[in-house]
Amino acid sequence: MDVKTLAKEVKDYVIELRREFHMYPERSGEEFRTSKRVKEELDKLGIPYIAAGGTGVIATISGRKPGKTVALRADMDALEVQEKNDVPYRSKNEGLMHACGHDGHTAMLLGAAKVLSAMREELKGNVRLIFQPAEETANGAVKMIEDGAMEGVDSIFGIHLWSGLPIGKVSVEAGPRMAAVDVFDITVQGKGGHGSAPHEGVDAVVVASNMVMALQTVVSRELSPLEPVVVTVGKLVAGTRFNVLASEAKLEGTNRYFNPKIKDVLPAAIERIAKHVAAGFRAEAKVNYTFATSPVINDPECSRIAATAVKKILGEGGLMEYEKVMGGEDFAEYLKKAPGALALVGIGNEQKQTIYPHHHPNFNMDEDALEIGVALYAQYALEFLCNN
Amino acid sequence: MDVKTLAKEVKDYVIELRREFHMYPERSGEEFRTSKRVKEELDKLGIPYIAAGGTGVIATISGRKPGKTVALRADMDALEVQEKNDVPYRSKNEGLMHACGHDGHTAMLLGAAKVLSAMREELKGNVRLIFQPAEETANGAVKMIEDGAMEGVDSIFGIHLWSGLPIGKVSVEAGPRMAAVDVFDITVQGKGGHGSAPHEGVDAVVVASNMVMALQTVVSRELSPLEPVVVTVGKLVAGTRFNVLASEAKLEGTNRYFNPKIKDVLPAAIERIAKHVAAGFRAEAKVNYTFATSPVINDPECSRIAATAVKKILGEGGLMEYEKVMGGEDFAEYLKKAPGALALVGIGNEQKQTIYPHHHPNFNMDEDALEIGVALYAQYALEFLCNN
Amino acid sequence: MDVKTLAKEVKDYVIELRREFHMYPERSGEEFRTSKRVKEELDKLGIPYIAAGGTGVIATISGRKPGKTVALRADMDALEVQEKNDVPYRSKNEGLMHACGHDGHTAMLLGAAKVLSAMREELKGNVRLIFQPAEETANGAVKMIEDGAMEGVDSIFGIHLWSGLPIGKVSVEAGPRMAAVDVFDITVQGKGGHGSAPHEGVDAVVVASNMVMALQTVVSRELSPLEPVVVTVGKLVAGTRFNVLASEAKLEGTNRYFNPKIKDVLPAAIERIAKHVAAGFRAEAKVNYTFATSPVINDPECSRIAATAVKKILGEGGLMEYEKVMGGEDFAEYLKKAPGALALVGIGNEQKQTIYPHHHPNFNMDEDALEIGVALYAQYALEFLCNN
Amino acid sequence: MDVKTLAKEVKDYVIELRREFHMYPERSGEEFRTSKRVKEELDKLGIPYIAAGGTGVIATISGRKPGKTVALRADMDALEVQEKNDVPYRSKNEGLMHACGHDGHTAMLLGAAKVLSAMREELKGNVRLIFQPAEETANGAVKMIEDGAMEGVDSIFGIHLWSGLPIGKVSVEAGPRMAAVDVFDITVQGKGGHGSAPHEGVDAVVVASNMVMALQTVVSRELSPLEPVVVTVGKLVAGTRFNVLASEAKLEGTNRYFNPKIKDVLPAAIERIAKHVAAGFRAEAKVNYTFATSPVINDPECSRIAATAVKKILGEGGLMEYEKVMGGEDFAEYLKKAPGALALVGIGNEQKQTIYPHHHPNFNMDEDALEIGVALYAQYALEFLCNN
Repeated sequence: MDVKTLAKEVKDYVIELRREFHMYPERSGEEFRTSKRVKEELDKLGIPYIAAGGTGVIATISGRKPGKTVALRADMDALEVQEKNDVPYRSKNEGLMHACGHDGHTAMLLGAAKVLSAMREELKGNVRLIFQPAEETANGAVKMIEDGAMEGVDSIFGIHLWSGLPIGKVSVEAGPRMAAVDVFDITVQGKGGHGSAPHEGVDAVVVASNMVMALQTVVSRELSPLEPVVVTVGKLVAGTRFNVLASEAKLEGTNRYFNPKIKDVLPAAIERIAKHVAAGFRAEAKVNYTFATSPVINDPECSRIAATAVKKILGEGGLMEYEKVMGGEDFAEYLKKAPGALALVGIGNEQKQTIYPHHHPNFNMDEDALEIGVALYAQYALEFLCNN
Repeated sequence: MDVKTLAKEVKDYVIELRREFHMYPERSGEEFRTSKRVKEELDKLGIPYIAAGGTGVIATISGRKPGKTVALRADMDALEVQEKNDVPYRSKNEGLMHACGHDGHTAMLLGAAKVLSAMREELKGNVRLIFQPAEETANGAVKMIEDGAMEGVDSIFGIHLWSGLPIGKVSVEAGPRMAAVDVFDITVQGKGGHGSAPHEGVDAVVVASNMVMALQTVVSRELSPLEPVVVTVGKLVAGTRFNVLASEAKLEGTNRYFNPKIKDVLPAAIERIAKHVAAGFRAEAKVNYTFATSPVINDPECSRIAATAVKKILGEGGLMEYEKVMGGEDFAEYLKKAPGALALVGIGNEQKQTIYPHHHPNFNMDEDALEIGVALYAQYALEFLCNN
Repeated sequence: MDVKTLAKEVKDYVIELRREFHMYPERSGEEFRTSKRVKEELDKLGIPYIAAGGTGVIATISGRKPGKTVALRADMDALEVQEKNDVPYRSKNEGLMHACGHDGHTAMLLGAAKVLSAMREELKGNVRLIFQPAEETANGAVKMIEDGAMEGVDSIFGIHLWSGLPIGKVSVEAGPRMAAVDVFDITVQGKGGHGSAPHEGVDAVVVASNMVMALQTVVSRELSPLEPVVVTVGKLVAGTRFNVLASEAKLEGTNRYFNPKIKDVLPAAIERIAKHVAAGFRAEAKVNYTFATSPVINDPECSRIAATAVKKILGEGGLMEYEKVMGGEDFAEYLKKAPGALALVGIGNEQKQTIYPHHHPNFNMDEDALEIGVALYAQYALEFLCNN
Repeated sequence: MDVKTLAKEVKDYVIELRREFHMYPERSGEEFRTSKRVKEELDKLGIPYIAAGGTGVIATISGRKPGKTVALRADMDALEVQEKNDVPYRSKNEGLMHACGHDGHTAMLLGAAKVLSAMREELKGNVRLIFQPAEETANGAVKMIEDGAMEGVDSIFGIHLWSGLPIGKVSVEAGPRMAAVDVFDITVQGKGGHGSAPHEGVDAVVVASNMVMALQTVVSRELSPLEPVVVTVGKLVAGTRFNVLASEAKLEGTNRYFNPKIKDVLPAAIERIAKHVAAGFRAEAKVNYTFATSPVINDPECSRIAATAVKKILGEGGLMEYEKVMGGEDFAEYLKKAPGALALVGIGNEQKQTIYPHHHPNFNMDEDALEIGVALYAQYALEFLCNN
């Protein structure tokens, strides 16, 4: 039987799983229940696995025939969001919600495991299943890799269900797909004093304010207009009281971009501006800068393989070009180990009201996408293994 | 006996009282122990009083001869400062300290009460003694006045011990002496969103930052360079997290000035800048503006009387011109009811290490100033009553 | 004979023409000599033409067989640049130079005219040749269209020789290729006075400075990071003398973008910021905003036809993806009348030193590109006419 | 006869002279006609003089008795202003006008010369008369001093007729009276380029704009609110064309203050801000800073002498306190050589319309002030010489 037919057969199983995961969302790194359920389902399928990355699971389906190894990845963690959907499978964990679709990812990968298990006879090589914790905090992938998730892997394929794409459509373009996420904070050290005597201190409120304005020019003047870049100061806290001169200010922000060359110049630009603005006002600035997540850049060949898989599942009309996403994904870590591709699979459906943005308390998915996702995971594996 | 001699006689009594008050500092409006002690001392002197303004006390010494009424004022509250002085009379109330000299003010006024009591026979008219709570929170004077402190008063005289002036020197210039204190806060309403999608929101961090820079021009461009004015944003809090677009910013600040005409234009300038900067960036701003304290403006005639008193106590060399103070004093409230003067009495003495600024955890006074203060309170009363 | 062979035959003719044009560069709208020479060459070829758009020329080659009409366009004007190249065909017109390659464009289109004339027997339909004046001032295309250049035209094809692309490479991607060019100026009306009395005036220097900083946020905060946009204030003049308060400031700038939706929001953003910044500082701002040039957006089908032509001339390796160009081209005007494509044809060659940017006094071209351009013009025409 | 009587006698002579000078205003350093007329009048009085400082004149009246030497100073230059007054003695020199009252100063000093000549018998010591050129360009006093104007001088007295003061009032307070004038310019070196490619250059428009905003904080945050200081950027020119990135910006400005301590910190503050703002944006800044004029600070004793003179001429009511003036006066140069005082003599009179500010095309004076000025010059000389 072909992937499409098998995927249809597991559809109800996957929907049921997804709803169960949805009811019991868990914090990043604390996916205990989810992890336990994944193992139980793998046990039922007789697929061997090891625990990894804390609450993660690495399973392997070995084909009857020798060949390469392809990895399929799903993430399992939820968000600190209070669900506002009125559905039977509403979150039972107060203040936590699967508001990004990871419940679907995990369920789909279990569905794909079932499909691929059924096809083991014709499988040429191995399929590695990566159930990852802590994607939202950007440190799950790294831990899974440390525990061997990518050892021997020749290609990796991931799916992100996406509410901005209509149901029935999949985007797998080559090149940059999701942004690099850098995190920075700047501490401005001024000099406190009484608010009525500004000249006896160094006003950190003014220094920080000028710094924020100057930082706007990184995007507006320093970097190519053809490069999508975001520099955001999300939080600014300066001073303690209306009549006390602020001695300190703290800025916290994030930068986003796709082109790895930007990585080489952005931290220096932030540092240069912070230090010189501070010095201009007789203050000092200390900058912490972290490269949290690399950009997700789809390998052209893997992207082509994924496109072929999409066409087999959904026909020519299934492919849809979609703009790059300024959000980050630690799927990028796997791509440092082997070429691969991340597909955005549409879940948007106006009639089913599944059009809210990710992380929104009304986020939800058209569950018809789950069957598509199962089939796509399995088909990518087959395409890669059979043609290599 | 003259005032000088009598003041010398009460010196030890006043020092003892001051140290006792210093050991038991109390919060603004909660001067229970201090108030009780004041009453006890007045009882010993046989001076009648009434409670007023919560924990305040209004006492009256009636002279044998008829005449006018002069008021003498002391404030009693302490500050939320942890004392760092290592002295036998160190604060026993954790986190509270008489770091502004009010302990000395209260003790001196009790000393002056003793001196003036001893001179009742020759006193022409009455002396009102005002022991005021809550000067630091700028609402004690108003409450004392509501409770009758200034009824029938023809002139008022106050003392602020001052560490910036050397011991043995007194400043009683006519005209503006301490600044008006205005308080404002501005709430910037932007629009939140993900930090990677600035265009979908309105970044309150940027709006607030530009607002702070624009507010600098009130002093640098809008008001006469000959008018001392301070516009300080002491606190700025915007946003909640490094990767979330700030939906709101809150600025809190204070303005200082002497010229009452500034009062008419400053709130409008702050409001204009806040509203237009916000609108320029598609945000909204709401401004709260309060006139907390009026400027202390010494009456020329009362200032002259005080200068005469200073010369009698300290000789010609006792007078010293001192710059205006950008800090506020709710002594200004009394001056709305009767002409008067506030004297700055020097407590600075390098050898005794009493040179720390007010509100500093090492603030302390050269206690020789207490005798001077006692004499000055009493002499002002005599000068005013005898020449009117 | 095929296009490639014919193009090779006219190569020397075209190089000779290009060098002649190079020696006699003319200002936008004053291309008198160039225009005369174009007509002379058309006369030699027996191709009928009319004068249009001032110094422009519209010629038509009618094929033997009936069919559609395809337009080919070249621009003829030079720049106010003093040439620094030391070549035999150096500019003889002081202060003027063909520093953008229009000399090549005009020569190539005459070469293509010769090639297509030779192929008239097999030509199905008509080829319109548009020799346009005043591209650099962005008003030549409009005038040519007013005089009938696009009447009856079914598709238009243009070439821009490009020093950023290597010789032998051509870029003809579909979609946005060159940016919209908007032009704006802002007049800030403050109030003058003596520099020592800022409070008696409204300082236009400060207003303009804050405005420039606020304008940076249009790109950094208001528009999608995925949309390439530039907002540049190129010139700022405020005030007249060091000790006189500036009563007026003038800002002049240009905006660039590709997405036509930006056109709907950018002028309003500039106006909003200008007006509110001015009002915040008690000044007034007047904004003039002009849409000078629309973005050049290649039609997907015409782009495909052009790509086919490129492959026939240069083989598969001739096509090269090239980033969008933030500069403008009034070729966009023709595209409002009929679908078409603008090709960037590589002239860059390190060995021949033809790597200087356009408008540079050392700009020059690898003249081997001229034969390619001739062939491409002709091949596009054939492709379009034969397949329609 | 006393000064008052003698001054009344020369009143018409002085008015006539003043009107003549008014009709023939001359540029700073080009006071040829004025200088010639001064010498003619001195010749008539038999007062010896020497030429000095170019077009200046130094005369000396030697008293019969030995004593000290007192200097009286008048300035002679006019302004590049087109007079709008419709008076019989309207300026006959197109584009030039005595719009600052120097015509009156020169006339008054000649009047005082006549008065003092008549009193030579009783004069104890010498009176130096200084007729100075080029006050408006702040370089006349220095040249006069170089040529000996202050040699042997024990005190100097000057008058500035002042439209802000009412007729009959004189201000001669001790301490700072007119401001220090510093002049600065800042050249910002960015990097030019095409306006569509900001990232390839360094935009000097943005650098200069941020610099102007940062410079506002010198007054608003760095210097005591009790010190009157002005920092004005009067002129800002950046860039050349709307679509070319500005490679350079030029700021020109002036600073004003009274306290000489400010002189020590202000240039460094300007330099620090300029350099760091530039460096923060990858640009460079070069600062030129000049101390053009020192503050006029009246000596307390000389101020007292002048006050005594005022009272003798006008009675107690003649003295009027007047605010400090942020404009500069090179009279400050003389004060570096000997103690002295500058008096502001009122010429304001609503009924006579002499209320326009200095440098205004409708500036004029109540000529009754001329008699007062003559008397004051002479009386100061007598007071100083007789009591020393």
